[in-house]
Amino acid sequence: MPQRMVVIGADAAGMSAASQARRLRGPEDLEIVAFERGRFTSYSACGIPYWISGLVADHQELIVRDPETFRRDHHIDVRIRHGVTRIDLDNREVVATSFNDGGREVRESFDTLVYATGAVPAHPPWADTATLGVFGVQTLDDGAALRDWLDQDDPPRRAVVVGGGYIGVEMAEALIRRGLAVTLVERSQQPMSTVDPDMGALVRAALVGLGIDVRTGTSVTGVHERDGRVSEVLTDDGALPADVVVLGLGVRPNTALAEQAGLPLGVTGGVRTDLQMRVVGKPDVWAAGDCVETFHRISGQPVHVPLGTHANKQGRVAGINIGGSYATFPGVIGTAVTKVCDLEVARTGLLEREATQAGYACVAVSVESNSRAGYFPDAAPMTIKLIAEQHTGQLLGAQIVGKSEAAKRIDVLSVAVWNRMSVAEMTALDLGYAPPYSPVWDPVLVAARRANDAVANTP
Amino acid sequence: MPQRMVVIGADAAGMSAASQARRLRGPEDLEIVAFERGRFTSYSACGIPYWISGLVADHQELIVRDPETFRRDHHIDVRIRHGVTRIDLDNREVVATSFNDGGREVRESFDTLVYATGAVPAHPPWADTATLGVFGVQTLDDGAALRDWLDQDDPPRRAVVVGGGYIGVEMAEALIRRGLAVTLVERSQQPMSTVDPDMGALVRAALVGLGIDVRTGTSVTGVHERDGRVSEVLTDDGALPADVVVLGLGVRPNTALAEQAGLPLGVTGGVRTDLQMRVVGKPDVWAAGDCVETFHRISGQPVHVPLGTHANKQGRVAGINIGGSYATFPGVIGTAVTKVCDLEVARTGLLEREATQAGYACVAVSVESNSRAGYFPDAAPMTIKLIAEQHTGQLLGAQIVGKSEAAKRIDVLSVAVWNRMSVAEMTALDLGYAPPYSPVWDPVLVAARRANDAVANTP
Repeated sequence: MPQRMVVIGADAAGMSAASQARRLRGPEDLEIVAFERGRFTSYSACGIPYWISGLVADHQELIVRDPETFRRDHHIDVRIRHGVTRIDLDNREVVATSFNDGGREVRESFDTLVYATGAVPAHPPWADTATLGVFGVQTLDDGAALRDWLDQDDPPRRAVVVGGGYIGVEMAEALIRRGLAVTLVERSQQPMSTVDPDMGALVRAALVGLGIDVRTGTSVTGVHERDGRVSEVLTDDGALPADVVVLGLGVRPNTALAEQAGLPLGVTGGVRTDLQMRVVGKPDVWAAGDCVETFHRISGQPVHVPLGTHANKQGRVAGINIGGSYATFPGVIGTAVTKVCDLEVARTGLLEREATQAGYACVAVSVESNSRAGYFPDAAPMTIKLIAEQHTGQLLGAQIVGKSEAAKRIDVLSVAVWNRMSVAEMTALDLGYAPPYSPVWDPVLVAARRANDAVANTP
Repeated sequence: MPQRMVVIGADAAGMSAASQARRLRGPEDLEIVAFERGRFTSYSACGIPYWISGLVADHQELIVRDPETFRRDHHIDVRIRHGVTRIDLDNREVVATSFNDGGREVRESFDTLVYATGAVPAHPPWADTATLGVFGVQTLDDGAALRDWLDQDDPPRRAVVVGGGYIGVEMAEALIRRGLAVTLVERSQQPMSTVDPDMGALVRAALVGLGIDVRTGTSVTGVHERDGRVSEVLTDDGALPADVVVLGLGVRPNTALAEQAGLPLGVTGGVRTDLQMRVVGKPDVWAAGDCVETFHRISGQPVHVPLGTHANKQGRVAGINIGGSYATFPGVIGTAVTKVCDLEVARTGLLEREATQAGYACVAVSVESNSRAGYFPDAAPMTIKLIAEQHTGQLLGAQIVGKSEAAKRIDVLSVAVWNRMSVAEMTALDLGYAPPYSPVWDPVLVAARRANDAVANTP
């Protein structure tokens, strides 16, 4: 008699868990049922801006595996358009509504439950409107709606993107590529508040250089419509004409069901798990992805970091453990990269503000350098900022703003942060050198030297 | 009364040492004299192929600082075209011949000596020929001679490059870019024997795809000339027509003077130093760059790794210590990258063969992956090979062969090797993810997962 695993949410985290568990336990040992509210499984939400822009021609390209493939090749019973309405931990049962079937209720018992409901977008009250032309870009279904709007016979020409974080700036690029005039509205004083203000200033200058009208320190208060279609975005600094509005306001863990079922939530609002991704205090329940809280290895603090790369890793870890093997997810260090046209922005570890909040005394340095030997064609400038602990010189964080071949250098710094290297030791790192790839002093080494000097000169 | 520092060799290592010492000690405290055999100081020898190809228009672009700048801005008395003929340690004196001045002998006393004579190219007996059209590419002067030859009114059309290592393949690219037909002759069974044979096979296929006639397992025995100009390269596998021959046969430490002066040499033939780059047993003598022996942090063995990046670091370390501060050069891990047209080749740590020789029992895996999300335009394939210690899973080495955005990923692996990470821990690394930069599972993570499986499955 096989056991049964039920997965709530059939995207990155949930289906990674299901696939790994299946790899280790066959269908005769473990039945797997996955409920998915939407129409799609295992797709790259991060790819949506590139589908909107047209760089990716077809949304099918964003889908890693469809429900039929999971059923056929992996014996995983994926049920799309099923919204789970209740988890009954005592009776080990999940209740769902089938949207296909006139709202028929479905009940499924489980031995093992995986909670992978993802995140829900922040949704200000003014966005609760029937006005046409206002879009989130959280799901493929959202993306499809936005694309249809942009493809109208009389297509929109003026876009307002609300929120200057990763999604916001990536959507700004997508809309520029489609030829729209784009205004980016951000409540805080800088776009990309995921980097320090001095680096954010570089980002702002680059965004303005791309022709984006950047309005920071500006809050949206509502939208005006004409004939049921959006015509203006209202802000505390005046009205902005708009034929289309895109919301990129961040997300929060989707925990409505978890709360109802009594799963423990952390201070960030995410479901609390142990290192194996088992929900704290619930032996048969696992959670992974954008709905969970994890911890920051350098600050020691709980954090909520909704990113596909973590969702995949956490799902894999949960699945390996459910499968009877062993793996852990040992936390994050806050690495993120983004690209806006030819601008590259990257970060890892702690910002200055975050380091101070965590209790570190730190020094920070910024250096400008080149992606390649200065004499080599297409050498592109970049700015690297390093944040190191006083006295010890431990690398706490790094940020990069530059042009081509800048951002992925963050990975080198990410591995250094992960290993708690000192900037002194980093000056000796054996990094690849050839003129097409870097100056003889790689920008990372130049930055480490400068940071080491700063640490030495700080009393 | 100032002390006097004498530097032998005014390129990367020597001038890094001089500059750092000057930064810490002014001319009233330390006089610095640097002797240089050639006409140039502080230039990028690694850039020579790109000057030959025409990617870099002028050799002046390869020069970081000229003698006049050193004299004027740094109070460093650089004497070009001076060949040092003898070091007298007992009397703390260096004897040099001025090539400018009819061979006049110059003597200079020192308190501190920096030995930075670089390397000398391997030069087979058959290359000791008066035949025109046979060139090394070790120095800017070599490069100038080759360029002149290629720029003749009746320019050469058929090139033979002898040696399939970094210099050889980079020169092959340079000559292809200039429109020559190129044959690459390599004595061993694969080009780029700096990577394992399985990866070398990928390199060979790519070189052939670029139109290079690759002859491995082939030894050159001589050259034929016609009218004093090279006409054929003779090999144990037949004659190859050639209008120009480029030697890329590797180098050995330039230690003639060191031997004469009784400086200690290691098993690799390089000058032995301590971690501060002080010559072993010689308190006032320092050595740095391509003439020294260093050690491999993972094999624990002495190695000779002539590379500009090490020369610069070692020179800097020597100069900081001479200046009265403190720094060390803590060894290398064998990182190297090269680019041949659109082919990228990279390595770090130990090859399989080297790991075995060092005494490790290891497992190796290779994975194919993409530089970007598969649906993203211009996603390029790459192969990553990881070598890990049995049982512990410690990452011992890595190699990458791919197209764009492949090679510099070696730096991520280099920092992992440096920190003796296990492949298990590496599966959790927090690397940057966004579709323009990587798939949601970065190739490095995919490789770490595969290696971790292999370690787990090895009894």
